[in-house]
Amino acid sequence: MNRRRVLNILGKVILTEAILMVPSLIVALLYGDGDARYFVWTIVPAAVVGGLLWRIRPLDSRMSSRDGYRIVGYGWILISLIGAVPLYCTGQFTSYWQALFEVVSGFTTTGASVLDRPELLPHGVLFWRSFTHWIGGMGILVFVLMIIPMKNDNSMHLVRAEMPGPIAGKLVPRMKRTSTILYGIYTVMTVALVILLLLGDVSLFDSLCLAFGTAGTGGFSISSAGIAAYQSAYVEIVLGVFMILFGINFNVYYLMLLGRIRDALSSEEARCFLGIIAVAVLAVTANILSLTQGLGEALRQAFFQVSSIITTTGFATTDFNVWPEFSRHLLLLLMVIGACAGSTGGGLKVSRVIILVKSFFAEIRYIVNPKSVQAVRLEHKYVDKATLNSTRTYAAAYLMLVALITLLLSLDGYDMTTNLSAVLSCINNIGPGLELVGPMANFGIYSNWAMVLLSLTMLIGRLEIFPIFILFSRSAHDK
Amino acid sequence: MNRRRVLNILGKVILTEAILMVPSLIVALLYGDGDARYFVWTIVPAAVVGGLLWRIRPLDSRMSSRDGYRIVGYGWILISLIGAVPLYCTGQFTSYWQALFEVVSGFTTTGASVLDRPELLPHGVLFWRSFTHWIGGMGILVFVLMIIPMKNDNSMHLVRAEMPGPIAGKLVPRMKRTSTILYGIYTVMTVALVILLLLGDVSLFDSLCLAFGTAGTGGFSISSAGIAAYQSAYVEIVLGVFMILFGINFNVYYLMLLGRIRDALSSEEARCFLGIIAVAVLAVTANILSLTQGLGEALRQAFFQVSSIITTTGFATTDFNVWPEFSRHLLLLLMVIGACAGSTGGGLKVSRVIILVKSFFAEIRYIVNPKSVQAVRLEHKYVDKATLNSTRTYAAAYLMLVALITLLLSLDGYDMTTNLSAVLSCINNIGPGLELVGPMANFGIYSNWAMVLLSLTMLIGRLEIFPIFILFSRSAHDK
Repeated sequence: MNRRRVLNILGKVILTEAILMVPSLIVALLYGDGDARYFVWTIVPAAVVGGLLWRIRPLDSRMSSRDGYRIVGYGWILISLIGAVPLYCTGQFTSYWQALFEVVSGFTTTGASVLDRPELLPHGVLFWRSFTHWIGGMGILVFVLMIIPMKNDNSMHLVRAEMPGPIAGKLVPRMKRTSTILYGIYTVMTVALVILLLLGDVSLFDSLCLAFGTAGTGGFSISSAGIAAYQSAYVEIVLGVFMILFGINFNVYYLMLLGRIRDALSSEEARCFLGIIAVAVLAVTANILSLTQGLGEALRQAFFQVSSIITTTGFATTDFNVWPEFSRHLLLLLMVIGACAGSTGGGLKVSRVIILVKSFFAEIRYIVNPKSVQAVRLEHKYVDKATLNSTRTYAAAYLMLVALITLLLSLDGYDMTTNLSAVLSCINNIGPGLELVGPMANFGIYSNWAMVLLSLTMLIGRLEIFPIFILFSRSAHDK
Repeated sequence: MNRRRVLNILGKVILTEAILMVPSLIVALLYGDGDARYFVWTIVPAAVVGGLLWRIRPLDSRMSSRDGYRIVGYGWILISLIGAVPLYCTGQFTSYWQALFEVVSGFTTTGASVLDRPELLPHGVLFWRSFTHWIGGMGILVFVLMIIPMKNDNSMHLVRAEMPGPIAGKLVPRMKRTSTILYGIYTVMTVALVILLLLGDVSLFDSLCLAFGTAGTGGFSISSAGIAAYQSAYVEIVLGVFMILFGINFNVYYLMLLGRIRDALSSEEARCFLGIIAVAVLAVTANILSLTQGLGEALRQAFFQVSSIITTTGFATTDFNVWPEFSRHLLLLLMVIGACAGSTGGGLKVSRVIILVKSFFAEIRYIVNPKSVQAVRLEHKYVDKATLNSTRTYAAAYLMLVALITLLLSLDGYDMTTNLSAVLSCINNIGPGLELVGPMANFGIYSNWAMVLLSLTMLIGRLEIFPIFILFSRSAHDK
């Protein structure tokens, strides 16, 4: 391990977080709810520690891919530990672990909350809570790379470890430019959403918070009533559409920027994603029709909820916990599928699901004809063997982790639907689950140790399993 | 497809089933419950059709591996369709589909029942129902191979398609001898169990039925009270130990026969299997201690239930549906793990789980050092790439199927714990699930179409996913 290099970059990460807290401090000062000091208490020490670490000059700029995973793993844990401080200071959380859960839920864009009434938080903290979604959606290291110069091959390691999806990668040869393009697209789309919400008579504060939650596919709501509070079909449709837009691979938007509209529209993953959404909306609509006042409302509820769940945002306009079993089961399945790779959404990712389904048929072809070549194509290209192997291993690891974490969680004594949906909700970075953690309930029921377990689960899900395990694996300590 | 060859072997399969029904006919005649005619009505037409098909002489004895999978797939469907006839004739089933579910549950060694009170069935049919476990445990085609001569490479295809586990194979070069050795070990162990049960004052009829259910790791009980009816710690312990013995790879016993005791005892899979059982028994004991009268009873209940579930037998001495959530969750996890490859048990199989866990760590090593070789060892040998690929694909396919079938089942409107545990119970060939399909309940709650879906699920699980899909895959129809 290049210890000095790792500490140096972690210093930059902490310093960046301190800077990213400044807008929340300004909001706190503007509203004067008395939470400005919580930010000062956090920003000043973080800036000092970050600055000191930054001064550690690496003797050697080289960095292994293992170091990249280490930086991402430790970096995310550090920003969570620091980011939880202003929340904890408000006194609305019964323990620091609850505040940590809340902020991990923010950074990982999960959106699961332990708060009954988030509206009791002061405005600055409420703003920070939603802003963590925006930072976490695209990734803090991608942000660091944009503002701080770094050698290209080093930065590639970091982005690979932080960006979701089996084939996430760089758009252009230089990583700094890739980061800038990604954050550029992200910012423009977020601003567009804020403007559309303002046009729908949503206040500026609410528009910003909702836009952060949508852009990062996070899903924190800023009041206990959630999106239903706005009582506006316009707001629902705008959010429903933008959740889907943020769930699509950002490559597609980059291709559009380059004028390659045809290539953009032919994305197999995006088409498949939209196809699944269409089928799921129709199925849920048919299933809940008798519960709602007519086809229009059923369609609207189905569209919003399907969009919210498959993009792993987790906003709710209705209590889908009381929907018929088929719709509840279907929503859990959509949680697992998740959004596109290279988007801000979580889950297994549509491209992984495509690869797994195609692998299944390739295996059948191989069994009936062992001489045939087991090739799987995605986006009109053959998927290389390393990606195939790691996708299959990823799915198996995912299955084992869900089973194991659900088992551990059962020690708290709640029912299986609650536990399983809580784990699926956390590992896929959704937000609400079913039953006791349904959209109208919250995660406050769990004990402190379960909070820590679920916080780890969210990090494991956001960073796609391996970085967190590399931190704890023995082989990571040698060399 | 070598159609004549396939039809010829299917004829042998049907004829073999007719012969295997004769003992049940004799039991029916001995007890005189009036069910002898049901067997005559089934055996005579089956023998005629089987005999006619057998007369179709193949022009060419060659057979592709695809034909092997076809024969196994169609063969299992045919023996189920025929085997359900005597059950349906009793009038105890509300539809033919219920009787079909029951007999598929028998052949696949699942042991899930739709009957409230199986003791209402006449003795011959009750005997047949349990005997299907014994046939299905080792496999009907393995039986056919033992009694009917067939070319060696052809028979290898059949055994590969029927035997469970990622690395099932032949013990000796000649398949006919392998089949004979396997059925020999199986018969000797079954007879030993019958004798031990007789020594425990269990009647001959009950001893035979219980032994069939244990040997095949099936788990049909012949009365609504299940194993609790015998009120005997001796019977419980004998069954508990024998379930585990039948859940161990039969290779181990073959090595013992050859006198290679050391090799037999060093089996990694068997050791791991016993280790999981030990840990699970201790965990459940601690968890249910407060519910039972002292440590002894807790340990006994935990041992029997863990043994019954992980070996995928599914006998119950107690209503584990009312156990604390942790034990319920743990039992579901054990269902998924299942027994050893090359045993009569179902589930993912311990060797697959070992390969998956080792793959996970291999992937971590690969990520931190992309130049390292991704090797996985099992039983002190490297696992070849084809097995690694197919194991990972198998796990992914398993995950997708469980999700999809649970979703379809939810159309019947029952809760998620019921549906998920029903699907896990059927695909892993266990028997009981939780909640509405718990050990003291039965599968009679589901509608006819759900019965067919779950019957398919059991076949998919018993034949390890691929053979059934090969029947329906388009590519299977060409050539």
